[in-house]
This record gives sequence, C-alpha cells and structure tokens, in this order.
Amino acid sequence: MTMSGGKVDPGGDGRDSGSAKVTELESLRHRVKELEAENAKLLSLISSCQCQQMEVKHDVSVLDPGSLVRRSRKARKRADSIPSHLVSKRYIALKIMYFGKRFYGFSAEAQMEPSVESEIFKALERTRLLVGDKKESNYSRCGRTDKGVSSTGQVIALFLRSRLKTPSGDSEAHVDAKVNERGEYDYVRVLNRALPDDIRVLGWSPAPIDFHARFSCSAREYKYFFWRQNLNLSAMDIAGKKFIGEHDFRNFCKMDVANVHCYTRRVTFFEVSPCQNSHEGAQLCTFTMRGSAFLWHQVRAMVAVLFMIGQGVESVDVIDTMLDTTKIPRKPQYLLASEIPLVLRTCEFENVDFICSSGAAESLRTHFKNESLRYQLESVIFQEALRNCLPVGNEKSSCNGVEKKKKGAVHVPLLSRPTEPSYEERSAKLKSRQQETCHVLLRKHVKGILMR
Amino acid sequence: MTMSGGKVDPGGDGRDSGSAKVTELESLRHRVKELEAENAKLLSLISSCQCQQMEVKHDVSVLDPGSLVRRSRKARKRADSIPSHLVSKRYIALKIMYFGKRFYGFSAEAQMEPSVESEIFKALERTRLLVGDKKESNYSRCGRTDKGVSSTGQVIALFLRSRLKTPSGDSEAHVDAKVNERGEYDYVRVLNRALPDDIRVLGWSPAPIDFHARFSCSAREYKYFFWRQNLNLSAMDIAGKKFIGEHDFRNFCKMDVANVHCYTRRVTFFEVSPCQNSHEGAQLCTFTMRGSAFLWHQVRAMVAVLFMIGQGVESVDVIDTMLDTTKIPRKPQYLLASEIPLVLRTCEFENVDFICSSGAAESLRTHFKNESLRYQLESVIFQEALRNCLPVGNEKSSCNGVEKKKKGAVHVPLLSRPTEPSYEERSAKLKSRQQETCHVLLRKHVKGILMR
Repeated sequence: MTMSGGKVDPGGDGRDSGSAKVTELESLRHRVKELEAENAKLLSLISSCQCQQMEVKHDVSVLDPGSLVRRSRKARKRADSIPSHLVSKRYIALKIMYFGKRFYGFSAEAQMEPSVESEIFKALERTRLLVGDKKESNYSRCGRTDKGVSSTGQVIALFLRSRLKTPSGDSEAHVDAKVNERGEYDYVRVLNRALPDDIRVLGWSPAPIDFHARFSCSAREYKYFFWRQNLNLSAMDIAGKKFIGEHDFRNFCKMDVANVHCYTRRVTFFEVSPCQNSHEGAQLCTFTMRGSAFLWHQVRAMVAVLFMIGQGVESVDVIDTMLDTTKIPRKPQYLLASEIPLVLRTCEFENVDFICSSGAAESLRTHFKNESLRYQLESVIFQEALRNCLPVGNEKSSCNGVEKKKKGAVHVPLLSRPTEPSYEERSAKLKSRQQETCHVLLRKHVKGILMR
Repeated sequence: MTMSGGKVDPGGDGRDSGSAKVTELESLRHRVKELEAENAKLLSLISSCQCQQMEVKHDVSVLDPGSLVRRSRKARKRADSIPSHLVSKRYIALKIMYFGKRFYGFSAEAQMEPSVESEIFKALERTRLLVGDKKESNYSRCGRTDKGVSSTGQVIALFLRSRLKTPSGDSEAHVDAKVNERGEYDYVRVLNRALPDDIRVLGWSPAPIDFHARFSCSAREYKYFFWRQNLNLSAMDIAGKKFIGEHDFRNFCKMDVANVHCYTRRVTFFEVSPCQNSHEGAQLCTFTMRGSAFLWHQVRAMVAVLFMIGQGVESVDVIDTMLDTTKIPRKPQYLLASEIPLVLRTCEFENVDFICSSGAAESLRTHFKNESLRYQLESVIFQEALRNCLPVGNEKSSCNGVEKKKKGAVHVPLLSRPTEPSYEERSAKLKSRQQETCHVLLRKHVKGILMR
C-alpha cells in the first residue's frame, strides 16, 4: 500500500478491482450500443411487416347495455376491480373453427405469433368473458394443431363469465340445454364479433367440472383435401384401410422421444372419397380418418406415403412393411404432405352438446359463405393469368404438395432411402445427453463447494 | 483519509467515483438485460412474420453452363468486374403477371416492402440479367398498381444482358422475332425460376430505343371480378356504358393535386359480363374497361358506384350527375371497392410482340393451373366449416367488398353525402402552403444573413 502525490493507491486488490471495473464498464457500454443498434434495426424490419397490419376489424359486441368493452381503460379497471371470485363464472366448452394458414399453430406456448390460441384469448379479454387470467381459468384444449393446419371442430374448455347467478354446471343440464341456458350470454355471437375473420366459435356447452378438453375426448377426425388428377384412388383406399386398427406408427410421425414413449395408436376409420367440388376439370377428393389420438405429424406422414401409392411409385404393401417396426425399426426419410389442406374436422365427447343461437348460426353461415367466395376469387386471378398466357401447350399438373419431382429426378423407393435413427437410438442418445448434463452440473456444484 | 483495520478508505473522491462506477455498472448491466430481452422478443415477432418468410424457392437457372449464379460470391464479384459497358446488352420489354395480395403495390418507391418491382429486381440481379444497377438500366414501367391489385399484363422495359453479340434493337426485327431471337437468353424461363410463386414473366420483346413502357402505351384494360348474387347486371351495364367517352373523372378518383391538374380521361370500352365460373350457386362476373390511362383509384371508385346501382340504392343517372363537374364540383364521400379483385389485364403497344418459348409457356400454364387449384383449396376449408355449422338457417351473402351495411344502417344517397374539397379548393390550399413554406425559408435565410 503506497501513498503518492495526493492520490490514493489502494494497493493490489484495489487497483485490480478498479481497473477490472473500468474494463467491464467499457465492455458494457459497447454492448449496450450494439444492442441498441440491433434493436433499431429489428424495429425497422417489423414496421415493414404486412402481417403485423392484420388487426381485428370487428365491432366488439356489448355484453349488456352498459358495455364493459366500450368503457374507457379507467372504467374497465374499475369494473375489473370486482374481485374475480365474486364474479359469476361457469365452466364452458367452446367449439372452434380456424383457417390455419397464417398462424404459427394452435398453441401459444411456442411464443411464435400469431397463434390461434393467443387470438382467442385476446378476444376473451376484449369481451371481458375471461375473468382473471388464463392460468386461473382452468383452460384445456383438445388438440395442438401445427402451423398452417386448420380445424372445423377444435374444442377448448375454461371458466368464463356467466350472466346467470346459479349457472348449471353438471351434466343433467344437457338434457334441455337450450331451455336452461336462456338468459346466458350468447357466447358464440359475442366472441365472433371480436375474433379475426379466420377464427370462429361454432358453439358452446356447459362442461362438467371433471371435463378436460384433451383427456375427455373420445375420438378425433381429420380430413385431408386434395385434387385427384391422375392419382389412383382405389389403390390409396386399399392402402389407407391398412392403417385401421391398432398399430405402431413410429414410421409415420415425427418422434418426440423426450415426451412420447409409446407410438401405438388406434385408427378406427379410413376412407378416400370424392367431394362434390370440381374445378376446371380437376376433381376434389378427401382422405377421412378417425382415431382416439394421433401422433405429431402422423396424418401428414400417412398422406405423403398414400400419395406415393396413388402416383404408382410405391406399392400398397409398403404400408404393411412400414407398420412392421421389427422389420423397419428406422423411419425412411420422406417429406410430409403440405399442411394447408389438413383439417382437424371434429373432436368427439360424450355428454357434450354444443349450443348455438339461430342468430349466431346465421351469421356464421353467411360468414363462411362469404369467406369461401373471397378465397375463390383469388384463384380466379390465376385462371385469368392462364387465359393471358401466350401459346397453348400441354401442361401436367402436380399440385398436392407431394414431393415435387425435378426434371429427370427419379423416385427413390421408400425402403431404399436413408433412414432416421430408431426410437431406441434416439432414446439412448437423449439419456446419455441428460447424464452428461447431470455430470457437468455435479462437477460445477462440487467445484463451488471446494472453492468456499 | 483514514486507515483502519487493514482496510483502506480511499477518501471522498475515491469513494464517490468508486461508487459512481458501481452505480453505472449496475445500470448498464440492467440496460443490457433489458435490451437483450427486447431484442429476443422482436426477433420472435419477426420470425413469425409471413411476408419475411416468403423466399424465392425456385432453383435459379443457369444462364450458360458455367452458371454465373451458382458461383461463390467471390467468383461472382470477379464475373461482375467486367465493366458493364463491355457486356452485351439490349433494350427489352417484359410482360409481367402478379397476384398483388401480399405486395405493397407494384412500385418500389414507397419503400414499403415487399413490392412487385423490388422482387423483380431481386430476380434480375440474382440471374445476372441486370447489368449494372437499376438506374443505369433505363427502366420504365407501364402502370403503378396499388397495394393488393393484380395484373396479367403489366409491362416494363429496361436494358438486360444479351447473349447475342449484335442483338437486334430496332422495330424491323419484329417481323420475324422468333427466328431472329434464336440463341438469345430464354428471359422468360430464366426469370421465372428466380421469381416467387405470385410473380411471373409471360413474355419478352426487343424494344425500340425510343420505347417507354408508360408513354408508349396506347391502351390499358382493367378487369374487376365479383360474385353476382342479387346485383342487377343490366342496370350496372347501362350505368357503366355512360363512362364511355371523354369525361372529367374527378368524382371517381383520388385527386393528387400536386401532380395531376387534368382529370379528363377517355374510356373506350365498358362491359359487364358473366364468367364461366360458378361456385355453390354463386355466379362469377366481371367488369371490363379500357382506356388510354386511368386516374389514381379510378376503377375502384367507378366500381363502388356501380355496385350501389346494382344493389338498387342508386339510380343509373347518378353516373351522369357525377360526371358533370359543374353540377358536382366536390366528390361525395364513399368507400372504394376492394382492391383484391382488380386486375390490370393488359397494356397495349404498337410494334411490340411478346415472345415466349414453348417450354417456358408450358411451365407457365402448369404453374397457373397449380396455383389456381391451390388457392381454391383454401376456399374449400371454409366450405367444410359451413358444413360443420350447427343448425341450418337462411343466410344473405354480401361479399364484394361493397360498403357493408351494419344492422339497421341505411344507405345515404351519394348526392346527399358530405363531400371532399373541390380541385380548386385543394389547389388553392396547396399553393398557400407552398407560399407559406417559401416565406418561412426566406425569413430564415434573411435571419441567417443578418446574424453573420
């Protein structure tokens, strides 16, 4: 420790810690500048984003004449200051439709916006039907559809505000649901006014207290729409019927080894059928399949293989082979069918009958008819482009999102393709990574103890 | 300064600056955390952005075997280092199709991304067909379509790289364009591989040196698609034919007083006609109109008024009245018809014949057919939703983007509505603002002189 020239030199430690602080200061200042520049860049990118422009345009309905929604923020705060346990609530199931194209899946957990769930909760908050927050609402959902996938029968359950002092909560109420619910909020109408055009509530139902949208579901049905073109429908139907029954579907899904250990599922129904629609000579068809539950990407994987069979590049027997996991323990690599044509059509529950007022139903039907025509119009513009093309030629269409063959590309048989790791291999790898992490943490912990 | 217990107390200054540093450190650390969290949030928002996701998925074609495009960035720089005046170029017109929904208009000038023009220039750069930059290319475009508006016949002109040493540049070449162009780059095919799915080049043509995509255009044709529903087609046809001829269209456009001083335009053709398409009982129809040039929003304004006539809430005579600018010097306020159904169908030029190789044409037809089916499929999902609705009711459709009537809303006759300022009033206001600005600048200038 020395003293010189009126300045204090606090000595070894002091000097080190002093200059260390200065270094850290400089480094932090630099970091802040970097981050601020990055931030400005990101904000500028976002301001150019078109999808951020998509706002809910609907008039938010009134719940009752003294509309909670239209009050000022202050007034809403006062209204919300009624403790939530004093507000009349009831446990409700909602049947939901959505056109999944612009959403990052149904679930809000991935935090990629927008998701269907987050839009629903925005509407629930805007209409004040949600009392308290999501966590307190005992919320559950039937299925987690992926990015781009649509639904006409998703189901969620949660506590919502009720107009009734003693709302009916148990299953006997269903006997005469419509009569019992007289006086209750028209949940369907109220929510549909607050939702964007591509999400709609189709109906609501009182739910028993032990109801869980996922675990109470007895069956799920998916539809996959496609244009027939030259596909061999009967081969696809024969092949698809091989899925019926209980099978190990690990070669027809994306494995989630951390969370899913059993890949056996039951398919109870499968059918290929033409729809009424035809367009410029193309016939619309659909795969319909039902099961208790489906694995991640299961339907799109099944459809991808069915398309190969329909195109004649795989035999119907490949289904049997790929369902035999002792013969094929590793999934061959193949692209999934496109997500846009996939629709979670319906989710079934016992003792749940969805209610919809005739006024709300009429609005729904008008809305769906309008939206259908609106999207149709977009396709018309491409037909006009077709007419404006120069010379006439023979075109081949292949537009079901099947693996596009580049000029000269040859179909590699599924069973000859490179494979992904088996369940056992993935499982072992995960286990060893978990052990590794465990060891690292343990070593740090021991080191920490020794250093004290 | 004191010393106690082995600890040094550096004294007043030392303590203050030391603790000031600590405070600043803490504050900076906190700021870094804040910014990192904010940036993570912004990145997550951006990653959900649909418009950012739309990348060019096509394989970029080779111009010639030693593909300029597929070389590394270094190699490309070497290739580009050939001075642009030594590269063989020619003046070309391109005929362009685009589905305008996701674009902020055709023009890149508004700097809202994406625009059709910016996508085209990306493709021109990627394929190395653009030599030098946009400014050097003598670029011109025929029309500036707005956000959401589509085209099947937009035309642009610019200098592009040529494979020929002495490309034919003058009009006699058109006599036998196909033969003369043997050996030239297949501009249509090359560009279409680099463009996104919703933009296509339909053909190319050598352009005379005095060609200007905008000023050489002799006629433009627009189509507006709509579903017939209950609209009175013959009333709309009678009304629309009143537009034919030379008229002052100031009551049927958005005035741009700074740049446009004459609102007289000539409409040479107008027709309402049904299309072949019908869908679930709805009949598709189209307005077709031709003129030398159209004002900003002119077609959408004309269509909006025609829809009111078709709905029976305005008389066909309102057209005559609104074209009489002495009687109606101020435009009544009314909403424009939606932009999505509007298509700039074709732009006409003398002595320009667009060429398209049969291979490129076949690809185009396949592409348009596929896209048309793909967009159709989206509308199918809403039809499925319709089928899954609960009870059956009578719906009324009104989906042409006409002014939606809210329950109980009454149509206010156009001629009774509030009006916008007249051309003269706007002009006077602009002039006075310009004078005001002039005076302010002058005062500042004088003040600046006096202060020296």
